[in-house]
Amino acid sequence: MIKAAVLGATGYAGAELVRLLAGHPDAEIAYLASHSYAGRRFSDIYPGMRGVVDTVLSEDSIEKASECADVIFLALPAGLASSSVTPEILSHSAVIDLGADFRLHDKDTYEKWYKTEHHSPELLAQAVYGLPEIHRRSIAGKRLVANPGCYTTCSILTLYPLLKHGLIRKDTIIIDAKSGTSGAGRSEKVTSLFCEVDESIKPYGVASHRHTPEIEQELSEAAGEEVVVQFTPHLVPMNRGILSTCYARLKDGVTEADVAAAYGIYDGEPFIRIIDTLPETRYVKGSNTVDISYRIDGRTGNIIAMGAIDNLVKGAAGQAVQNMNIIFSLEETTGLSVGAGSPF
Amino acid sequence: MIKAAVLGATGYAGAELVRLLAGHPDAEIAYLASHSYAGRRFSDIYPGMRGVVDTVLSEDSIEKASECADVIFLALPAGLASSSVTPEILSHSAVIDLGADFRLHDKDTYEKWYKTEHHSPELLAQAVYGLPEIHRRSIAGKRLVANPGCYTTCSILTLYPLLKHGLIRKDTIIIDAKSGTSGAGRSEKVTSLFCEVDESIKPYGVASHRHTPEIEQELSEAAGEEVVVQFTPHLVPMNRGILSTCYARLKDGVTEADVAAAYGIYDGEPFIRIIDTLPETRYVKGSNTVDISYRIDGRTGNIIAMGAIDNLVKGAAGQAVQNMNIIFSLEETTGLSVGAGSPF
Amino acid sequence: MIKAAVLGATGYAGAELVRLLAGHPDAEIAYLASHSYAGRRFSDIYPGMRGVVDTVLSEDSIEKASECADVIFLALPAGLASSSVTPEILSHSAVIDLGADFRLHDKDTYEKWYKTEHHSPELLAQAVYGLPEIHRRSIAGKRLVANPGCYTTCSILTLYPLLKHGLIRKDTIIIDAKSGTSGAGRSEKVTSLFCEVDESIKPYGVASHRHTPEIEQELSEAAGEEVVVQFTPHLVPMNRGILSTCYARLKDGVTEADVAAAYGIYDGEPFIRIIDTLPETRYVKGSNTVDISYRIDGRTGNIIAMGAIDNLVKGAAGQAVQNMNIIFSLEETTGLSVGAGSPF
Amino acid sequence: MIKAAVLGATGYAGAELVRLLAGHPDAEIAYLASHSYAGRRFSDIYPGMRGVVDTVLSEDSIEKASECADVIFLALPAGLASSSVTPEILSHSAVIDLGADFRLHDKDTYEKWYKTEHHSPELLAQAVYGLPEIHRRSIAGKRLVANPGCYTTCSILTLYPLLKHGLIRKDTIIIDAKSGTSGAGRSEKVTSLFCEVDESIKPYGVASHRHTPEIEQELSEAAGEEVVVQFTPHLVPMNRGILSTCYARLKDGVTEADVAAAYGIYDGEPFIRIIDTLPETRYVKGSNTVDISYRIDGRTGNIIAMGAIDNLVKGAAGQAVQNMNIIFSLEETTGLSVGAGSPF
Repeated sequence: MIKAAVLGATGYAGAELVRLLAGHPDAEIAYLASHSYAGRRFSDIYPGMRGVVDTVLSEDSIEKASECADVIFLALPAGLASSSVTPEILSHSAVIDLGADFRLHDKDTYEKWYKTEHHSPELLAQAVYGLPEIHRRSIAGKRLVANPGCYTTCSILTLYPLLKHGLIRKDTIIIDAKSGTSGAGRSEKVTSLFCEVDESIKPYGVASHRHTPEIEQELSEAAGEEVVVQFTPHLVPMNRGILSTCYARLKDGVTEADVAAAYGIYDGEPFIRIIDTLPETRYVKGSNTVDISYRIDGRTGNIIAMGAIDNLVKGAAGQAVQNMNIIFSLEETTGLSVGAGSPF
Repeated sequence: MIKAAVLGATGYAGAELVRLLAGHPDAEIAYLASHSYAGRRFSDIYPGMRGVVDTVLSEDSIEKASECADVIFLALPAGLASSSVTPEILSHSAVIDLGADFRLHDKDTYEKWYKTEHHSPELLAQAVYGLPEIHRRSIAGKRLVANPGCYTTCSILTLYPLLKHGLIRKDTIIIDAKSGTSGAGRSEKVTSLFCEVDESIKPYGVASHRHTPEIEQELSEAAGEEVVVQFTPHLVPMNRGILSTCYARLKDGVTEADVAAAYGIYDGEPFIRIIDTLPETRYVKGSNTVDISYRIDGRTGNIIAMGAIDNLVKGAAGQAVQNMNIIFSLEETTGLSVGAGSPF
Repeated sequence: MIKAAVLGATGYAGAELVRLLAGHPDAEIAYLASHSYAGRRFSDIYPGMRGVVDTVLSEDSIEKASECADVIFLALPAGLASSSVTPEILSHSAVIDLGADFRLHDKDTYEKWYKTEHHSPELLAQAVYGLPEIHRRSIAGKRLVANPGCYTTCSILTLYPLLKHGLIRKDTIIIDAKSGTSGAGRSEKVTSLFCEVDESIKPYGVASHRHTPEIEQELSEAAGEEVVVQFTPHLVPMNRGILSTCYARLKDGVTEADVAAAYGIYDGEPFIRIIDTLPETRYVKGSNTVDISYRIDGRTGNIIAMGAIDNLVKGAAGQAVQNMNIIFSLEETTGLSVGAGSPF
Repeated sequence: MIKAAVLGATGYAGAELVRLLAGHPDAEIAYLASHSYAGRRFSDIYPGMRGVVDTVLSEDSIEKASECADVIFLALPAGLASSSVTPEILSHSAVIDLGADFRLHDKDTYEKWYKTEHHSPELLAQAVYGLPEIHRRSIAGKRLVANPGCYTTCSILTLYPLLKHGLIRKDTIIIDAKSGTSGAGRSEKVTSLFCEVDESIKPYGVASHRHTPEIEQELSEAAGEEVVVQFTPHLVPMNRGILSTCYARLKDGVTEADVAAAYGIYDGEPFIRIIDTLPETRYVKGSNTVDISYRIDGRTGNIIAMGAIDNLVKGAAGQAVQNMNIIFSLEETTGLSVGAGSPF
């Protein structure tokens, strides 16, 4: 049994991770910490888990976690991971960080977009960007995994084949993304109140959202040249789900067959379904699956590629478990579901 | 492996059953039928299950089902089960009926409330009311299980200890129940449209809902005398969940300790949690769990007992699987979850 | 033109009042105050009102309000109204308090349920309980109106005819009420977050909710003897609306005709509709209307009386405007709507 | 008083029109028709309007409507308006068609996108595209107004200044639009059921939605050259609202000041607010207002222009009333609201 620790266990991503770990056949929860609720039981905060995870929450301490855990999951605000992970910690435990601190290879890009100092730039080279469908092999041997963001996972996986195969004009990419409200976290903000979210849709972070450089880093790597994207997130009145509607101009002469061949790169991927109908977030809810579909518009010359994930699963906790499975040489789907029931 | 068949597989209860069976370690799907969608794949209708259950749907035929299945689940409109189950079928396969046809022991009561003829009254004596927490022993040896209704499961389990222990005045019982919209099924009715349900709550079936006699049958049996209840269902703008808020006058002299002792009847039940906080449907969503809580009001002399379930799981498909587990001598929790993540 | 001031203008009830006053043909907004947002424009906080109400918000000051306003509306936390209203204020301006401070005639009852001191008990005798359908005549001449609570307005009006006419047994009253989330206000609480409310229903304040004594006061007055009720509120995942499902045992010999006659007391009321179908909160959304319906259950001897209102309109701001209209001798429906569009 | 008739009065757009006409100070409802509910009262179908509009519904007959009405509103399925409007009808009554039949100037374009025959192409030249902010003067003298679609109203008004002033590259326009579910109408489709819409977002009609040519017609006219757009609608789990997020590449040298000047075209428009914050559909709910905002992204060279409307008001019924006001020389805002309360 893999012993697992979660720091930041009572945020939405942390709690989803606890749920998945509780049902994982080869992992057990060794340590749960929460700054806000230390001293209380996890199930006091998440009563749905009463009788299942009644572990008492500790104060966040990566040192204590590393004493008892083979793997430490960090679900902390930006800046905290980079100031707590050390080579010493990594020598005891693998670390999977659900935050942003180790996702960007470039310290300056991080500090510019996150407007906070990076406290352990020397560890960036040891970190791997934990998107298994692209970096599976690199993840296998690593001790420090930067688990991708929710919008980024969805957007990168949707566009990756097109850039990898050089089918689209790299200066025409538009990503119009829509997210359920759990992406905003569990903090007490007026803008997250039920009555402020219900029955409305809004854009936010236009031309300035922090997931932009992360998407650009990965797509640039795929393209072999610098890619800049227009990324616009929106808030949708639902708990979970991300839909990325991506637009780009196909290069001259690119055919439907070329596009189909490019998406063939995902053949055999357990969590990616290339579907003929259009994706809906409900069909991936609760699962680690990515549904991807595309349409080519002969009138405009554009391709519209659409992807859907559950932001708390493939966009956070599920992908973290997938990374753990890789690191510990388990079947990648262990403890994760592919199918999604509905209505849910 | 238990071979399972589902008739009526594309209704909401049927589809949830397919989802649960697909994840059940000791069962496999042998036959799926759907009157509306015969010839198509299950996953065409429920795309969330693409790659997981791509079984082609047959026309409803209990005969064909019985040829290949150890257990047949019926999720059909009222009247169809009673006209298709026969001793011959039961000799081949166990039958778990998610509909109402075999729930009421009394044919006349059935015909009065359901306003349809009962086609196999001779089988009523062979059927067992499949509420495991009350009738577990009787279920074990049976071939025909009448899986309880959603409102009834929630209401009966919430009130059962009070009547079994004779703590409340049986002529004062009020059950005010609230249900998510999946309880209304997947049929194309104006009243089930998003824009007719969203942002509103309404009562319906006041003093006339068909789950009433089912509740009364079971509570009367518990009380050892005839019990009549006031039952009022309400429609809530959410997918899943039932909350039963039950009121009754405590008999003179009944103490808090008496009540606590009565609910002790559920000690050891894997799916019942007697909780100190108040139940919320989100904390049982997707699980087979029943959360029950109560308050005694010294000012009025009433007890308010509240129970919450997921109507599609403990109120339908999950309980059906629980019954299957009992019949086939499996651990009762196999393939079912106790914990519920949130937000979901 | 009536000059109106609103203190607490940026809470949900206060803002709804601003919206109604902005559309009122005989009133104008003279002063808006908000403790949290003083110095900003009302429309910065409620951008839906940009170009309509761009008034700069003042710090709450009832003195300043009384210098410029004929009527002052208070939408403040419990305890603040009783410490700020004075005979001096009342000599300048009529005061309509949307809070609880002047609703209970008995200071001790107030202090027991609200657990806070009442700062001006000497004013209680001058205050009138502002439920126009019952106290219209008393309201007319008053300077201090205690605007009823949302649950109470709905519950009292639904049950009032039955108690006034002595048709029900007064020790059997159960009020099971359901409210939209705006009733919880705009404060930053985890329990009010979208992801904590969406897709769930829960009871709260069981046997202890503060609206209980207010309901009992009015129903006792109607009955001419002390009435105690069992009141249970529930939180529903929707913005607005209250539904009260009320149960009581009819006295022996009471007929359907007696009940119909009792509800005839509302004939001619502009905001009450006695309907034959069952009430749904969407049909009163945005209006000042109360929809009331009832069913008599011959099996149990109970009457089930159901009422629906919009908690922010008839349950707060609309009723406050109705009271203003009465005090200033305007047509009672001025600036208020009876009809409700749907879907909304 | 203007006498108004509505054909198709029980669809969502028709019913919203009835609501607005019922509150219009200078109009009265003379005739209401509904194919599905002829013979019943309007308020039987929309009980929120009980006591307000109890008019008995007729069978759809434009002849009978024209006998009694100064203006006839048509809210009918595609193809019906073009087969019923005649010069004779227009000589008696002005006609405002909420459907698509007279929106496209070109018969062939209509027949290609709508896949149905146009029955009165000779009337196309007499029709005006009823978007007052662009065609106000032409509307004034007309007898036949083609009321624009919901997506189109929002998208055109958001992009119009940019094309009119030639600031964007016309081959780079992407419109990613999101709509509430009332846009799907009141028909009994599985895809419109609460449980199929709730807690999910999906694209539909990708590269093929019928509102595309309408947007292109108007933007081409504004640009003075042919414009082709990429238009993608999405379904959002909420009753009302449309948000259009529009992307385009700014031409070289275009400055923020140029853009601000272009949007100055809307100065004085009663229903358009150019706002500095980002639009949210809740802030226009129930009103005839369009909220528009934009951001220029220096990194990509794109402008992101965003507009929000209420699809049933400015996107249908409200705009129809606005057109009626223009035709009958009333103040354009009569009977319409600019401000929107929230939460609603």
